[in-house]
Formats: sequence, structure tokens, C-alpha cells
Amino acid sequence: MTSPTRSAGRPQRTGRRPGPNRTREEILQAARAAFAARGYDAVSMRAIARDAHVDPALVHRFFGSKESVFVAAMQLPVQPSRLVPAILAQGTDRLGERVVETLLTLYDNTGSGAPFQAFLRAAVTNEHAATMLREFLTTEILGRVAAAAPDQLELRAALAASQILGLLMARYIVRVPQIVEAERSQLAACIGPTIQRYLTATLPDAAASP
Amino acid sequence: MTSPTRSAGRPQRTGRRPGPNRTREEILQAARAAFAARGYDAVSMRAIARDAHVDPALVHRFFGSKESVFVAAMQLPVQPSRLVPAILAQGTDRLGERVVETLLTLYDNTGSGAPFQAFLRAAVTNEHAATMLREFLTTEILGRVAAAAPDQLELRAALAASQILGLLMARYIVRVPQIVEAERSQLAACIGPTIQRYLTATLPDAAASP
Repeated sequence: MTSPTRSAGRPQRTGRRPGPNRTREEILQAARAAFAARGYDAVSMRAIARDAHVDPALVHRFFGSKESVFVAAMQLPVQPSRLVPAILAQGTDRLGERVVETLLTLYDNTGSGAPFQAFLRAAVTNEHAATMLREFLTTEILGRVAAAAPDQLELRAALAASQILGLLMARYIVRVPQIVEAERSQLAACIGPTIQRYLTATLPDAAASP
Repeated sequence: MTSPTRSAGRPQRTGRRPGPNRTREEILQAARAAFAARGYDAVSMRAIARDAHVDPALVHRFFGSKESVFVAAMQLPVQPSRLVPAILAQGTDRLGERVVETLLTLYDNTGSGAPFQAFLRAAVTNEHAATMLREFLTTEILGRVAAAAPDQLELRAALAASQILGLLMARYIVRVPQIVEAERSQLAACIGPTIQRYLTATLPDAAASP
């Protein structure tokens, strides 16, 4: 419906709302900059809207939650608030195996894994990105997983995170041959019991250890 | 004993062998460049000597082995060929706990951990550095550790490496609070059994898993 021969001679830049795709991308750009600069916890939906020069209601309409903005901005293959309850809903039997197999399936299916690699690389090389990853991990993932654990919730979730982080590093970044070549089901069978133990078994008492 | 009023007017730069410290540093610089460009396995002591414009016998006299050159060049806090046999010499009882506690003690005692962080960061951000870390891990560490395992040596060592990599990431790079704040003995008690299981327990059969 636009005329290619408008007398103004150049595309108009102002006085008109940008299309939804452009607005969405502008929100994500503002979100990436805000998370990178201030971490995950300190950034609100309202602040992202302000930075993107849009109404906060629009950010809510597009994404629904701060977690969703983050997942879209970082191109994560999974939304923890959906994934974690889905895994927990099947009970704690073989919970660890299901966690490992689900994560590997998700990452293997995101093609080259490039967005995830960029995300993890940023967290390793940049203090601010590390803060962002740590706060997102703690707030959105570890807290949800630990809710299924009997006690020492935060330590359990952090131990599980340490094994998962190392598995993803070994398979996708450092590319240790035996981890790259293993079938997902084999990795789930080997590493799943580790996650299972961290989340559900009796942990050694800190005070009682030598 | 040098005269501040030499007639030449500037410090002499050639025609004299550099002191041992300077030679050592030149060898390490050449080694860093060679490992970064060609990985660990493809670089020989002879090639390092050639790149540093010194006699190969000098590289041997200073360092003794390629592993030692690498450890010095990367400022690693530990030499695997010494550490691994020392840990294995105490038998497999609580082997995993000893591995974790020893590694954490070494890294905690290298001050800020800056050289290790730089090394790991390079491996995460740069393909060549990842190759270098992978080949060093495989050749010098995993092979030695796996020699203590009953079967599936390489897979066992790689699984152990995945948990150790994740622990070091969580404690020193991403800085997950519960892992940073935990005592070394507590981490050894929690994570040691994981390493123990990967190295010594019966692993699930790849073919038999679903």
C-alpha cells in the first residue's frame, strides 16, 4: 500500500510506529545491552521498555516476563520456567538422566550451537556477562530445580550446575573427543546419576567433613 | 661494574649471549606462540628451539620435557606428570575426593588465579586455544588418570574432566555463589564421589542404554 514514488524522496523515519518485528528487535537490543551492563537481577521490564523507547505494556505483550525477554535476547534454546516443571512433573526417578538428555537434545538441535556458544563465551571472558549468567542461573534455573530437593537447596542446585556447565563445555566448546562422540543416551546414563545424587541424595555435612 | 659514560652511548644489543632469564623467557614466548598456532601434539621441543633461535639442548636443559615447557608457558600451577602419580600412589580409596581437594588447593593458592583464568578463557574463546587445551588434557592428564581405571579408560577420564572443568568454571569464572563460598573439604566430599564413580565404578554399557 505504500507508494514507491513519494515526493519526499526518502523513507520516512519518524512520526510512524515501526512494525512489530522492528519493535521486537529494538526491545531485544535494549535488553541485551541492559543485561550485559547491569546483570540479570537489576534489570526490570520497565527499564528495558524505557531503554527501547516503548511502552512497558508493549514489552509485556511481546514477551510476558523478564525471563522470556532474556531467553529471546540470548537466543537460548529453552525457557527454564517451562522446562524445569516439565522434567520435575515426571517425579524424581531417573531425574538426573532426564535433565542431561533433555539439555543435550536441546543444544544438539539448535544447529551449530552458535548462540549458546557465544553466550557461554561471553560469560567466560567478561565480568559483566558472568554476572548476568550467574544471576540468571541462580534466579531462574537453580531456584526452580532446587525446589524439588529435600534440603540444602541452593548447594544442590549449584553442584548440579557445575556438572552441567562442565558437560556443555566439554561437548560444545573444548570438544573433548569422547564426550563429543558419545551418544546422548550414553552421556545421560553416565552423568545422569551424578545430577540425581546432587539433587536428591544425602549430602555430606559441611561441618562433619575433615 | 658497568660505566655509565660508555662512549658507545647506548646499551649493546648484539654480539653477546643473552642471560639465562632472557633466554628462558624467549623460549617460553616461542612455545606459547607455537602451541597457540598448532596445538599441543604437533609441537616438538625441537620446533620450539628453532622458533626461539636456540639450541634444542638448551630447551631440554631448561625444561626437560614438552609438558614442562607447556606448564611454564601457560603458568599452570601443577605438572600433571608429577601430580597424577602422587595422587594415584595412595590407591583408589577416596581417589575422587583427593583429586578435587588437590586441584582446588592448587588453584586457590595461585593467588588471584589469573593465569589459569586467562588460559581457560583463551580455550573458550579461541578455536586454536581449545585444540591446545584438548590435546594437553588428553595426552598429559586424561591418559595418565585413565591408566588407573579398569576399562573404558578414555571415556572415564573424559567424564572426570567434564566435572572438573565445570567445577573450576563455577568456582573461578562464573562464580556461582554456593560453589565459591563452600569449603574445599565440603566440595571434595560432595564432588569427589562423582570423580570416584567415573574413574572406578561400573559404567553403563553404551549399547545397552535406551
